Amino acid sequence: MSDIQRYGQSKRWSDVVVHAGVAYWVEVAEDPSQDTQGQVQQVLAQIDATLAQIGSGRDRLLQILVYLSDLAAAPALNAAWDAWVLNGHAPVRACVQAGLSPGYRVEMVVTAAVNGSD
Amino acid sequence: MSDIQRYGQSKRWSDVVVHAGVAYWVEVAEDPSQDTQGQVQQVLAQIDATLAQIGSGRDRLLQILVYLSDLAAAPALNAAWDAWVLNGHAPVRACVQAGLSPGYRVEMVVTAAVNGSD
Amino acid sequence: MSDIQRYGQSKRWSDVVVHAGVAYWVEVAEDPSQDTQGQVQQVLAQIDATLAQIGSGRDRLLQILVYLSDLAAAPALNAAWDAWVLNGHAPVRACVQAGLSPGYRVEMVVTAAVNGSD
Repeated sequence: MSDIQRYGQSKRWSDVVVHAGVAYWVEVAEDPSQDTQGQVQQVLAQIDATLAQIGSGRDRLLQILVYLSDLAAAPALNAAWDAWVLNGHAPVRACVQAGLSPGYRVEMVVTAAVNGSD
Repeated sequence: MSDIQRYGQSKRWSDVVVHAGVAYWVEVAEDPSQDTQGQVQQVLAQIDATLAQIGSGRDRLLQILVYLSDLAAAPALNAAWDAWVLNGHAPVRACVQAGLSPGYRVEMVVTAAVNGSD
Repeated sequence: MSDIQRYGQSKRWSDVVVHAGVAYWVEVAEDPSQDTQGQVQQVLAQIDATLAQIGSGRDRLLQILVYLSDLAAAPALNAAWDAWVLNGHAPVRACVQAGLSPGYRVEMVVTAAVNGSD
């Protein structure tokens, strides 16, 4: 068995890659027709689903790099984020404005620990 | 011997850093006079060369963060990328637009596994 | 004891997260009223303080992703950076322009090795 696990593979990318107890993935909203708050809530829910899929959890997030299409939407990000982050288990976070594909308001690059014993 | 290996050191940065079976590096085109497609092809070829140098391979890529100077060039990125990615071994990928140094169209931040047994 | 250590936790994020011998954190200038050179010097000093706090050092930096609010300030970044980087132990570095919160000129995403024996 390989020491690298890949989930949700397409030709272009894997949805999640796990190596040495660390998972790497990227999330954008599945439905980009929503506004920033809606997209952030989708992305956070998608992160929860991925964490469950890989046997991790919200308490094992290491780092999240957030790209917003408009930093003026940071309050909407923070409102949803603050309600979502697990108290005492917050990851490191960076947040900058970058150009995203049309319609997309937020993109998150996630790093999480997978195994509790490694 | 240190548990950190550094390749291609200059005063400002190392070309590649390896620690705990994970390699980190950044690529921009060696010849930025080419257009986006040419620069993407250069960067992907440079990644191949680095993978060979560190004893890794295209099947051990974990994550690639792509910065494009213009997201309108995403089709050119994807055409070269799709032909390059190894089927069944695609890394995680993020792609956003950011400001790059004059002439540069693409910059990639690469994470790859190095040792097959770690 | 958890295999994840978090330092400087607030509701929104941790200042530093350490897992499997790797530390992740993000720095912006504590005093954003200064110009780019002043903010870069602050950020580098803050990185030093964090390295000391977690039992690491400037010789154990793996990767630094630099976001500048204006790439025209790259010479100011490089002047402070070149004086700071430890010769023979330079990390990998990416540097792109991205939108930062008002007043901020530079943001750095840092990855460093923590334990010398892992």
